[in-house]
Amino acid sequence: MPRYALLVEYDGRPFSGWQRQADRPSVQGAIEDALAQLEKRAHTIAAAGRTDAGVHARGQVAHCDMERGWDPFRLSEALNYHLKPAPVAIRAAALVADDWHARFSAVERRYAFRLLTRRAPATLEAGQVWRVNHALDLDAVREGASHLIGTHDFTTFRSTICQAKSPVKTMDEISVDRVEGPAGPELRLFLRARSFLHNQVRSIVGTLERVGAGAWAPEDVAAALAARDRAACGPVCPPGGLALVGVGYDDDPFAAVP
Amino acid sequence: MPRYALLVEYDGRPFSGWQRQADRPSVQGAIEDALAQLEKRAHTIAAAGRTDAGVHARGQVAHCDMERGWDPFRLSEALNYHLKPAPVAIRAAALVADDWHARFSAVERRYAFRLLTRRAPATLEAGQVWRVNHALDLDAVREGASHLIGTHDFTTFRSTICQAKSPVKTMDEISVDRVEGPAGPELRLFLRARSFLHNQVRSIVGTLERVGAGAWAPEDVAAALAARDRAACGPVCPPGGLALVGVGYDDDPFAAVP
Repeated sequence: MPRYALLVEYDGRPFSGWQRQADRPSVQGAIEDALAQLEKRAHTIAAAGRTDAGVHARGQVAHCDMERGWDPFRLSEALNYHLKPAPVAIRAAALVADDWHARFSAVERRYAFRLLTRRAPATLEAGQVWRVNHALDLDAVREGASHLIGTHDFTTFRSTICQAKSPVKTMDEISVDRVEGPAGPELRLFLRARSFLHNQVRSIVGTLERVGAGAWAPEDVAAALAARDRAACGPVCPPGGLALVGVGYDDDPFAAVP
Repeated sequence: MPRYALLVEYDGRPFSGWQRQADRPSVQGAIEDALAQLEKRAHTIAAAGRTDAGVHARGQVAHCDMERGWDPFRLSEALNYHLKPAPVAIRAAALVADDWHARFSAVERRYAFRLLTRRAPATLEAGQVWRVNHALDLDAVREGASHLIGTHDFTTFRSTICQAKSPVKTMDEISVDRVEGPAGPELRLFLRARSFLHNQVRSIVGTLERVGAGAWAPEDVAAALAARDRAACGPVCPPGGLALVGVGYDDDPFAAVP
């Protein structure tokens, strides 16, 4: 059975998350249902990042196995046709080797987070930013983030229901920029690692927001990390500002897609 | 009665447009209802641009008259509180002179339009872009747009239900740029004029899209304009890509708002 990598974009709001669940809409379920329109049987797909409810993706990567050989472009077009009106789109498809795996072959995940800092509620950006009604100190957020770079035991920043075998992860990058967005000033965070623990990004962003607001000192982040205690974490931030923007592989399966 | 200018942002999707209508949700109605929570009586507000159903605003300007003097910041906060959960936000409020008028004092309107050019349907940008599934020739669109700059009879680009006394308007600017947006390549159009006819922006964008697609030659825009005939217009484009981004006044009422 030929295997295809899918580059997937979605609005996470109507979904209970990536992962298929009984009786609740999921992104995985939406794509598997669309696949069943193409080849009438049960389909099971895998993805690089199992995003939570309300978390978006601009560059999720999944793979599917098909019975017949599909032209990758036609496969993406057919899936997009059957996915409507769900806010899920296949941005590209590519034939990959039988042993290539969207999750296990991935060597890097990239997440972006948008923090809108203004008094007025978000309208056009609602559900796609975390709006806080106070200013944030960019330098303090950057200094707080610096304590998390490198290889650490991230128990503090890990959901208690996280199923990863080890809490030790290597954070390769947390960059923070202030951008004048369409609705006002934003802090945009970009996090890059080989893999993340469950709720790790939202635990980190929620904690760094406290630093930006002045409620935490930047070095309190180092102390929280060293505590290796979930109770030492700042508040987990809401999902809407978060998007999985990219997944890295040793060989980009979409490199040749126009 | 003190008069206040309001800088208004909204997502146009759930509304039948700016203008209050019986039994249909409107932005004007939402704000007037919020005002009635502050001073219990009928309110009538005016705005610089009466946007159509599905058209957004990032910089709409309206004004309201209040019985008592309000601190402008507190007025905006109170309105935002009562506007929830409608996707309408007051970004700023300012005390203005009694004879200042959001519509009649305005000397410039600025509109932006987002055209997403990709095969896959829009997800996170759905309703905020016009997605076309073919490439557009930027230079051709710019050349087509150049024919519309200046003072012309815009009968071709005017809705048949337009109530303006004259079809003659002066287009000060139509700029077009290609931007790599979050969902892929976009053409972003920016149109600036003292005032616009009903459906003028969408008639122009729909026509320029045909130019970009190669169905029209750039000089066909000049011929359509010269025809002064609604039938000579290209297709009116969908509303979702359009936003009123700003209104100009001789004295910016919000200049002193932090």
